[in-house]
Amino acid sequence: MIIIIQCKDHIGLVSDISRILSEAGLNIISMREHVDKAEVRFFMRLEVDGFADEVELEDKIRKVVPEGAIIQVNPVPDKKIVILVTKEYHCLADILIRNNFGTLGASVACVIGNHDILEKICVRFDVPFFMISYGEDAKSSENQLINKIQEHNPDYIVLAKFMRILSPVFVSEFRNKIINIHHSFLPAFAGANPYRQAFERGVKLIGATAHFVTDDLDEGPIIAQQIIPVNHSFTVLDMVRSGKEIETAVLAKALRLVLNDRVFVYKNKTVVFDN
Amino acid sequence: MIIIIQCKDHIGLVSDISRILSEAGLNIISMREHVDKAEVRFFMRLEVDGFADEVELEDKIRKVVPEGAIIQVNPVPDKKIVILVTKEYHCLADILIRNNFGTLGASVACVIGNHDILEKICVRFDVPFFMISYGEDAKSSENQLINKIQEHNPDYIVLAKFMRILSPVFVSEFRNKIINIHHSFLPAFAGANPYRQAFERGVKLIGATAHFVTDDLDEGPIIAQQIIPVNHSFTVLDMVRSGKEIETAVLAKALRLVLNDRVFVYKNKTVVFDN
Amino acid sequence: MIIIIQCKDHIGLVSDISRILSEAGLNIISMREHVDKAEVRFFMRLEVDGFADEVELEDKIRKVVPEGAIIQVNPVPDKKIVILVTKEYHCLADILIRNNFGTLGASVACVIGNHDILEKICVRFDVPFFMISYGEDAKSSENQLINKIQEHNPDYIVLAKFMRILSPVFVSEFRNKIINIHHSFLPAFAGANPYRQAFERGVKLIGATAHFVTDDLDEGPIIAQQIIPVNHSFTVLDMVRSGKEIETAVLAKALRLVLNDRVFVYKNKTVVFDN
Amino acid sequence: MIIIIQCKDHIGLVSDISRILSEAGLNIISMREHVDKAEVRFFMRLEVDGFADEVELEDKIRKVVPEGAIIQVNPVPDKKIVILVTKEYHCLADILIRNNFGTLGASVACVIGNHDILEKICVRFDVPFFMISYGEDAKSSENQLINKIQEHNPDYIVLAKFMRILSPVFVSEFRNKIINIHHSFLPAFAGANPYRQAFERGVKLIGATAHFVTDDLDEGPIIAQQIIPVNHSFTVLDMVRSGKEIETAVLAKALRLVLNDRVFVYKNKTVVFDN
Repeated sequence: MIIIIQCKDHIGLVSDISRILSEAGLNIISMREHVDKAEVRFFMRLEVDGFADEVELEDKIRKVVPEGAIIQVNPVPDKKIVILVTKEYHCLADILIRNNFGTLGASVACVIGNHDILEKICVRFDVPFFMISYGEDAKSSENQLINKIQEHNPDYIVLAKFMRILSPVFVSEFRNKIINIHHSFLPAFAGANPYRQAFERGVKLIGATAHFVTDDLDEGPIIAQQIIPVNHSFTVLDMVRSGKEIETAVLAKALRLVLNDRVFVYKNKTVVFDN
Repeated sequence: MIIIIQCKDHIGLVSDISRILSEAGLNIISMREHVDKAEVRFFMRLEVDGFADEVELEDKIRKVVPEGAIIQVNPVPDKKIVILVTKEYHCLADILIRNNFGTLGASVACVIGNHDILEKICVRFDVPFFMISYGEDAKSSENQLINKIQEHNPDYIVLAKFMRILSPVFVSEFRNKIINIHHSFLPAFAGANPYRQAFERGVKLIGATAHFVTDDLDEGPIIAQQIIPVNHSFTVLDMVRSGKEIETAVLAKALRLVLNDRVFVYKNKTVVFDN
Repeated sequence: MIIIIQCKDHIGLVSDISRILSEAGLNIISMREHVDKAEVRFFMRLEVDGFADEVELEDKIRKVVPEGAIIQVNPVPDKKIVILVTKEYHCLADILIRNNFGTLGASVACVIGNHDILEKICVRFDVPFFMISYGEDAKSSENQLINKIQEHNPDYIVLAKFMRILSPVFVSEFRNKIINIHHSFLPAFAGANPYRQAFERGVKLIGATAHFVTDDLDEGPIIAQQIIPVNHSFTVLDMVRSGKEIETAVLAKALRLVLNDRVFVYKNKTVVFDN
Repeated sequence: MIIIIQCKDHIGLVSDISRILSEAGLNIISMREHVDKAEVRFFMRLEVDGFADEVELEDKIRKVVPEGAIIQVNPVPDKKIVILVTKEYHCLADILIRNNFGTLGASVACVIGNHDILEKICVRFDVPFFMISYGEDAKSSENQLINKIQEHNPDYIVLAKFMRILSPVFVSEFRNKIINIHHSFLPAFAGANPYRQAFERGVKLIGATAHFVTDDLDEGPIIAQQIIPVNHSFTVLDMVRSGKEIETAVLAKALRLVLNDRVFVYKNKTVVFDN
């Protein structure tokens, strides 16, 4: 069993929670606990051996933790995700492969694109694809998008190189459920054509960042980051290619962490209990 | 406060231990727990906020854990190490620098060499250096070595490129206290002149392994491992240079982990609660 | 244009070759040259701007280099590969995706499996799949395999987790054309169940090696190697999963290098002019 | 012998240069060439076997390359560096160690600090230390600094955590000779207290950049960049410690590259022919 708890911190929480587990005959195999002292916030992830009634256990835990606690006993094991894409295939294809072979840790409910170019790869994998193009009325397009996503009621929405900016309405509709992959550089390049900028700056590393989406564009809680070395012999196109490799790897890692219930979000930061 | 516990596992350990902390008014800031299911072995590292009598706390914990438990409440903060060297300076110098600026997490009680070539760098840092050369009677030399080490009663003995094989007598005298840095390759090359072998094999990576020393040469519990890329343009000497860089880095990391009480040893493996 | 030359070394080779290019009005954009002094062997890779008759250029170069030289002027741009698999999907799927989107640097002529479990993923991508199971008469099976491969006349044969040992006959039939991905560890674990061995040894890194196949099993020239960190919390299954991630990445890198004509083989080593 | 050439590009350069080497009986062991097509700029680094008169060889090469070419035949093998520091020891100590054991690839002529805190470590290594504190008249202090540096006539000036901003006068005095190590993050944090900013942003990586200094603060040609992973359990102080480790490593790498004549600067970018 996996148990996830996030709440306001106070002395005795671990004692109270572990006593409940002990009384239920559960053995704690792996425990990760972290207190954010500045925020007085408690985060805990437990892997336990044994069996217990999930609802009953959650009720017991809820009695000993502060009001408003987030508690999950065996968080949904068969999660659903919806993927939003535009034209680039690399992140989508990697997810579809893992989905196809049952190693994603979730199932892909559908893919939604604002172009139809990636429909074919979805068809190859028998995954439903819907096109919702952004016309002149962006708001109406986004409403369609929200409706289509809600039909599938996903646990997470993955922006796998979705190149449209989401409105605050969209973001608040799916708070802490939207995961984006962002090409971020060292030093970070804002604005258009980041690889051209990186090329002209002569950087020796390019990177990628997977993060939850908030209203502040590209400023949400970071889940995972990695880099890949480049050098003077890289053209802008070589940098784009390297960027895609690292984006694919970072998003895959972030999804593995999130879908295994290893990522906690609080305010603008994450606590990641990676193994 | 830092609390370290290792013992046989059973249900309720976390509950019992955390209750004691709670009753003592201590707040758990960071908890790492791991159970080795195959070995039925419990490992825990706690960082807590608050103050309590260390001896009293240890006594209380000892009452709720199985006999033979290893318990440390605030493990020695000012640890001492003795360093054994032969001729290569890279690992020693890195440790002496950290020692000099107070960032090692321990103090270097003395350095012992079987050659005198590294005496001068020790003198520069006002660190006592003793030469115990290996004559024809290796056993007698090792006895001198053991005596000299025991005079300083170190918490750990660091083999910073000490090129003599230690006898079972030596190893049993300082069980789980001897840390070695080993050039290990991918694939690993046993025997003499490993860099020549690596060169001839045309490897693309060379590595290093820091481990505790047991009777099985180079087979003790691994603390840390890292690699560094190489390529066809590397001569044997270039590989040796790269090897030294990675040896220095891996030993520094292993010492940081051990001296911060983040490494547990059980049988031939380690549990490392790195941050 | 790309020009590849490998031959016995002597003074004046670069001068003679570059004069020919200069006289043909070709500008050298990127030149990589390496001499293996022990083997007196010359390796060169050129990227040049401009146009010239390929056959004529090769003839001119051949006149100034030692007999037996390997020269390629614009090595086949549309290479073909045949992939051999058994049951594991991870490397195959990654290659099929790149093949599908035209970013592999080659086209997959067909996939051959000794089991049929991976047929379906090939069908999804409209890539021909043939099953040649190994019956009691392994020699006869291998002959079928050789014939089927020869039908497609590939530039390279990729062993994407093909779990049968190839005979010397097979290897000599496709010398320097067979690329394998091997789970190799630090320290390397020979024999069955390497991940179980790695788990029991308590390693902190696992790795993978892509190499050309020679008669010495797992001892051919190494193309690329990488590692991924692991720790005490990894079960054997977690290590297997991490191993698959790194195998996929290393094989992808090796294929990119080989298919971009950046890898030279001589005896048991490679020269890799990576960008 | 090592030969370095940088000049305007045109067809036939490699041919003309290599003919001269061939006629001098020199064998090219390793050649790296790169053309920046946008800038029409030619960069070449040669390692050759054999002996020739350096001045004569340079004269011959100069006749076949465009006016204004930078040519170095056996660039100064015993280079001198001057190190500027403030209070942090980590980069300085690493360089002093390499200097002491003759593996720096240069000798440290002196260390100049705007505080005296690092004098003692210099004394330990018998390296001259001068303090030039910045008083109210910064311009006067900088003039003293320039004079003191010029006394030693160094090949390079290394800012090993020198926390004062250098004026355009200083920079133009030592153009392309000043190497700085900069804590740069992903995303990059400008302004004061970058580790605090990084902590609050919740990054999962911190990095460092070694670069030549130009008038644009922190915007000069990048030589080397690396990163180190961090996580939620890192305090600001832990991030500072990790930052120091990576700063030390990146500056060491940059110095190795520069002092081995592997780095070319042109406008705001570098060409690095690393091995």
